[in-house]
Amino acid sequence: MENLYVIKIGGHIIDEDEKLSSFLKDFAQIPEKKILIHGGGKLATKLADQLGIQQKLIDGRRITDIETLKIVTMVYAGYVNKNIVARLQSQKCNTIGLSGADANIIQAHKRIHPTTDYGFVGDIDAVNAEPLTQFINSGLTPVIAPITCDDKGQLLNTNADTIAQEIAKAMSKHYAVQLIYSFEKSGVLLDASDDATVIPSINQLYYSTLKEEKKIFAGMIPKIDNAFAALNSGVREVIIGKAEELHNLINHSAGTKITHE
Amino acid sequence: MENLYVIKIGGHIIDEDEKLSSFLKDFAQIPEKKILIHGGGKLATKLADQLGIQQKLIDGRRITDIETLKIVTMVYAGYVNKNIVARLQSQKCNTIGLSGADANIIQAHKRIHPTTDYGFVGDIDAVNAEPLTQFINSGLTPVIAPITCDDKGQLLNTNADTIAQEIAKAMSKHYAVQLIYSFEKSGVLLDASDDATVIPSINQLYYSTLKEEKKIFAGMIPKIDNAFAALNSGVREVIIGKAEELHNLINHSAGTKITHE
Repeated sequence: MENLYVIKIGGHIIDEDEKLSSFLKDFAQIPEKKILIHGGGKLATKLADQLGIQQKLIDGRRITDIETLKIVTMVYAGYVNKNIVARLQSQKCNTIGLSGADANIIQAHKRIHPTTDYGFVGDIDAVNAEPLTQFINSGLTPVIAPITCDDKGQLLNTNADTIAQEIAKAMSKHYAVQLIYSFEKSGVLLDASDDATVIPSINQLYYSTLKEEKKIFAGMIPKIDNAFAALNSGVREVIIGKAEELHNLINHSAGTKITHE
Repeated sequence: MENLYVIKIGGHIIDEDEKLSSFLKDFAQIPEKKILIHGGGKLATKLADQLGIQQKLIDGRRITDIETLKIVTMVYAGYVNKNIVARLQSQKCNTIGLSGADANIIQAHKRIHPTTDYGFVGDIDAVNAEPLTQFINSGLTPVIAPITCDDKGQLLNTNADTIAQEIAKAMSKHYAVQLIYSFEKSGVLLDASDDATVIPSINQLYYSTLKEEKKIFAGMIPKIDNAFAALNSGVREVIIGKAEELHNLINHSAGTKITHE
């Protein structure tokens, strides 16, 4: 099977223009087929502040009310997505910006939770690999914003990490998928404050040990759990590492590789 | 050649939720192949006001400074585009939301004008019919926001009427294109204040007479000039009329038809 890179870029890169430019240059140079999934950075929060829309939090989790949904739709699917698309076009990388609603690539529903109403937050039912495969095979590189919709036409704010994972899983039927989570840290760290303590490789057994010994930073646990779930669903490889080191993540000279064995 | 409807909806429809819903229902029911081009409505102006960004006008024409560009990108390519896409998806019309940057469908440049700097306003160099044809032939209905980019990756605010016209022209090589400008009036009117005075059909000769007798509302002249230019470039038919009467515009029982002869 042909290689496909499914690459998620974290929010911090989007907030820093120079870092974003440099990342997009690296991304455009990947000769293989690829999909980019992006978050939103701090721009949505900034815009909400400017408009006097207060962020609602329940148990530390952000609630997407109708005004916040409007903002994230504008920022993620509009400003951020189209800027990335236009910049990659100028690098001769022929991109197509998509939300989950476009070409019906992601089917989602409003989150149902026994005690908390998260508002307009989407959980993914399915990814439709066919249109994505068609775009990729016709030479287009999809750039995906974390906005989906339900079957009633309601837009929903959706976690970009989860979108990356679900797309990687769905595309594994057609490609040898490498899922790359690129963010601000160099990988999974033994000491969260020291970027030099990257663990080069984690398998299930080692992961259990690390968790037992509480050596893993709590924020990393969902990312690694997702990585194993992806591997169990046919994704070839999951790599977590620094966005600034994209080429080294791809050639395995940087970051943390999550593996079965 | 197969029929293709290239339909532009005016801004006022986007501002009125019920009218928009009804229009989208009508649009989804068109059995033939189709492309929708939308403007932005008053939402962009409202958002600019809320953020304290003043509209700049030179000789009555709006200038797109960098802050305004950000707003129109968010509103047109984000909020409006994705809401239309999601609503049409719920009507079982499989849509794909695009700006001119996506799949490189429109190449544009920043407007060059001897005396006025319009800011980040795009003039169209070319429309790339190939990806649009591919999308349409694979069952997708493109929904296009009036944002383009230049070859340096700079996003540009671009007139939606012009986009509709240029797309109609480019697609005429592959389809029998009917270009429909749907807006708030019933068509080209003899008396601008009386919706019952629709002129059912205008050819070149009659247009000259109407202009000489000053019977045409000045605001309509660029629309009609563009219509004739489109006809001269292979577009089969141009119809101007009320968005609420979409099906009647298509079956020629409403609106103004612009024809060569």
